[in-house]
Amino acid sequence: MAQLHLFTPRGFRGTGVYAGIKTQHVPDVALLVCHTEAPATAAAAFTTNKVCAAPVKVGREHVASGKLRAVVVNAGCANACTGRQGEKDARQMCRIAAKVLEAEAEQILPSSTGIIGHLLPMDKIENGIWDAGKYLGDSLEHSMLFADAILTTDLKRKSAATQVKIGRETVTVAGVCKGSGMIGPRMALAKPGSASRPKRGMHATMLGYITTDAAVPAPLLRQLLGACTETSFNAVTVDDHTSTNDTVALLASGGSNAAVRAGTAKARKFAKALQEVCQSLAYQIAADGEGATKVVVVKIKGAASEADARVMARAIANSPLVKCAMHGNDPNWGRIVSAAGLTPAAFDPDRATLTLQGTVVFRKGQPVPFDAVAVSELLKVPEVTAELSCRLGKGDATVWTCDLSKEYVTINADYHT
Amino acid sequence: MAQLHLFTPRGFRGTGVYAGIKTQHVPDVALLVCHTEAPATAAAAFTTNKVCAAPVKVGREHVASGKLRAVVVNAGCANACTGRQGEKDARQMCRIAAKVLEAEAEQILPSSTGIIGHLLPMDKIENGIWDAGKYLGDSLEHSMLFADAILTTDLKRKSAATQVKIGRETVTVAGVCKGSGMIGPRMALAKPGSASRPKRGMHATMLGYITTDAAVPAPLLRQLLGACTETSFNAVTVDDHTSTNDTVALLASGGSNAAVRAGTAKARKFAKALQEVCQSLAYQIAADGEGATKVVVVKIKGAASEADARVMARAIANSPLVKCAMHGNDPNWGRIVSAAGLTPAAFDPDRATLTLQGTVVFRKGQPVPFDAVAVSELLKVPEVTAELSCRLGKGDATVWTCDLSKEYVTINADYHT
Repeated sequence: MAQLHLFTPRGFRGTGVYAGIKTQHVPDVALLVCHTEAPATAAAAFTTNKVCAAPVKVGREHVASGKLRAVVVNAGCANACTGRQGEKDARQMCRIAAKVLEAEAEQILPSSTGIIGHLLPMDKIENGIWDAGKYLGDSLEHSMLFADAILTTDLKRKSAATQVKIGRETVTVAGVCKGSGMIGPRMALAKPGSASRPKRGMHATMLGYITTDAAVPAPLLRQLLGACTETSFNAVTVDDHTSTNDTVALLASGGSNAAVRAGTAKARKFAKALQEVCQSLAYQIAADGEGATKVVVVKIKGAASEADARVMARAIANSPLVKCAMHGNDPNWGRIVSAAGLTPAAFDPDRATLTLQGTVVFRKGQPVPFDAVAVSELLKVPEVTAELSCRLGKGDATVWTCDLSKEYVTINADYHT
Repeated sequence: MAQLHLFTPRGFRGTGVYAGIKTQHVPDVALLVCHTEAPATAAAAFTTNKVCAAPVKVGREHVASGKLRAVVVNAGCANACTGRQGEKDARQMCRIAAKVLEAEAEQILPSSTGIIGHLLPMDKIENGIWDAGKYLGDSLEHSMLFADAILTTDLKRKSAATQVKIGRETVTVAGVCKGSGMIGPRMALAKPGSASRPKRGMHATMLGYITTDAAVPAPLLRQLLGACTETSFNAVTVDDHTSTNDTVALLASGGSNAAVRAGTAKARKFAKALQEVCQSLAYQIAADGEGATKVVVVKIKGAASEADARVMARAIANSPLVKCAMHGNDPNWGRIVSAAGLTPAAFDPDRATLTLQGTVVFRKGQPVPFDAVAVSELLKVPEVTAELSCRLGKGDATVWTCDLSKEYVTINADYHT
């Protein structure tokens, strides 16, 4: 079977081109287009940071109709904290793409990522979008160019895809994303039919774009993306710093003739495929976190509620002490249990059990003797799991993070000047 | 004037001795004793971590009467996550000190700090307390021995003191503290007259002890310590990891005959002196944060409320991106403004102004051109200040933190095994 990619779902094509925004000679402008007769149905979730970038503001407006013809992205400049001119530029990006694609500007979602507090170089953006328009395609290579063009400090291209039978039709769900630092997404759906009030932002981090050829009404797409984001992109953290540009968009072309309706078995099947893709993408962000040498999977079981489980998992995943211990292969479980206790979530150490890589290290308020050298050896792998069982209820949550290394400091102590 | 110290306030003496709990040959057991006829009036605030150490549990009980005769501290072992035996040991520590001092065990506050999940070496503790009892004194040297005996990964001894005229009497307020890593105190007063339910803990971090020879009723001491903690110890963060052992205790001997009553000018004068000492101690913790090369002072002005100001200041102070930028002398103001926007606190970037070391870098949603090289030079000092003016209300807050260096990773990636 051919490798699945962003443009495998029928009705999509795109590409990435080098427009000269980034200093390195790598792609930095990308287009994703739905070329079916009607535009794709669409949903998107955006950062909840009160400091949000111009493209987020414009994107919220444009996706409110539930229809998107295209996505236009640039890397190298976040168009954040750029005031009125920034907003004009984000709208202009959409107008240029609309002209190139003979579409409506209001059906184009703009995204930017990169340095903050700088205006977009609109001449380069314009040339880049025209260039991209000339080279649209639906091959694996086109998908890779798109995926590359949205990266910033990422070391690796990020993509995921799956196929699922919906009735007699094979439906593909595929996605790409970017993100390495300033990763602590807390995204929420844009309100349908209403644009949020103008705000401006600073920086750029997590971007994700998902395509499918299922036919899904926009309200259902919104519902599915909202639920899915909670257990995928909103469950990954590198440094807990919620960015100003975080965006994830889901476009359904209907190209497969597989119709998905709310509340059906087909919807559940589709939701599962969507979750699989989103979770894979989120995981790849943790794995490529700035300075990361391993993924740390934090699982909370049996919290008083799912919300409590999330809060505790996030506190553990964000503790620099926990992240340093994992970097040093140090089974310093006290840091994990104490991080669970420091949040407002209900937690009783006397009921809790903690396992590190499957080894019980703490049970019911007391340490469990274990071979520290052996467990340290178990931590010397690309993925380690800490599982905390709370015995308070039915709330479960998983959060992915990475270790904290000196390389993270190197990357972030010398980024701007 | 002779240097003021912990035992300058009349009625106190103490010392620190080496009991062999720490591997290095440095003091690790400390006694602070009030030798006036009646015990000192006292108040204490403890960690709000749901995972709390045995001495915190016992301390909450003992301070509930508002009277303390002594404080007994050990470093090298946190007596945290040690179950029933840990609680027995914490009580036994008090009983030993009570025997040595011919006092009541219930009027002794125990504290422990150090490695977690290990039982106290009670033979060493016992010998140490007996030893300390033999060498009590009120000299500067005794105070320094006490201050040294409570340290763990700290590089520097921490103390502060001030004097204030209350009526015709000169009153001294003096304190020592420790803390370097696992610093994100969120302390609250122990409930008077009631002990909190049994919980057990993990690790040890921020300890502070304050003496005064003012005569202050326990309820007023509680009120003053509670207010003061919010703007001092609870306003310092190194890694936002609230410890299981955080404790600050305030003992008033009444040795000066200066009586302080609630709601009086004397109380306000005393409160100011107390705040000065507590803020100095908190600042010293930030300055000696693990791996720190500088203090970062985060000031929020004009937030919608003081609570909002605190939340924003803390988010900025805890952002690894902000801390790395400060380490690299990088005026990357976007990280600061975006950190302010990521909390639930009200914030509107279009109204805000950010200054870095007095240079305006962002105003009303837009960058302000500045000389990045010059501002970077301004950041190469032991204390840098970021001040964010929100123009939303009257909420102000200051939080002290330190930069994030590779040294922090070195210290914490290899602590346990």
